[in-house]
Amino acid sequence: MQTLPDPLSTTFAALADPTRRGILARLAMGEATVTELAAPYDLSLPAISKHLKVLQKAGLIEQGRQAQWRPCRLTPAPLREVSDWLGQYRRHWEASFDRLDDYLHELQAATPATKRGSTGPRRTKGAER
Amino acid sequence: MQTLPDPLSTTFAALADPTRRGILARLAMGEATVTELAAPYDLSLPAISKHLKVLQKAGLIEQGRQAQWRPCRLTPAPLREVSDWLGQYRRHWEASFDRLDDYLHELQAATPATKRGSTGPRRTKGAER
Repeated sequence: MQTLPDPLSTTFAALADPTRRGILARLAMGEATVTELAAPYDLSLPAISKHLKVLQKAGLIEQGRQAQWRPCRLTPAPLREVSDWLGQYRRHWEASFDRLDDYLHELQAATPATKRGSTGPRRTKGAER
Repeated sequence: MQTLPDPLSTTFAALADPTRRGILARLAMGEATVTELAAPYDLSLPAISKHLKVLQKAGLIEQGRQAQWRPCRLTPAPLREVSDWLGQYRRHWEASFDRLDDYLHELQAATPATKRGSTGPRRTKGAER
């Protein structure tokens, strides 16, 4: 018996493709028809439709019901679920960037002042990126 | 010619599995051996190793080099990439929750006071969830 994937797995699988993420980025600017969504890609309309179906199944987009003009639009709820899931790891990447920051400061302190440029990368410790 | 998936697609594909997300959640609490990681699952060690390989290829975990005791640990940089990518959609889900909030307030205003409980759900508009 094949069990259906959980919603979060379905969302992540839908996002694991640059064309599908490109479609979402376009829809973030407003509704668009399938033809408009297909325009930037060197793909057949059926191939685009297949991508749209994956996004629809994941609840990331909706398509209007009007026969001719069926604009797609973004439905962001699953992305919020991803954000909630990510929250538990935030302190980990912030901690690792703080360690990198400390290391870069140590390096800079060890470099003679004449060799140091004034336009080097700078980051405030603990700032959210 | 098969091109390699982009890093973000590789990360999302790795996250599209509840066992792999469970392994990450365990490693968020600290290093663990493969045996420790396998303990909560009804899976063979080779099956767990396969999941670990997927996580490793995505750069989400690292495994120590010591022959016997090879603890795995979380490497959170790819999760930060996901968070950065998600950022562009935050206003969308916040907007849609504000619309839901407005609707719930309208519903509540339309309900006679005697029917309204004082312990109903309440949410501050615009608050991050």
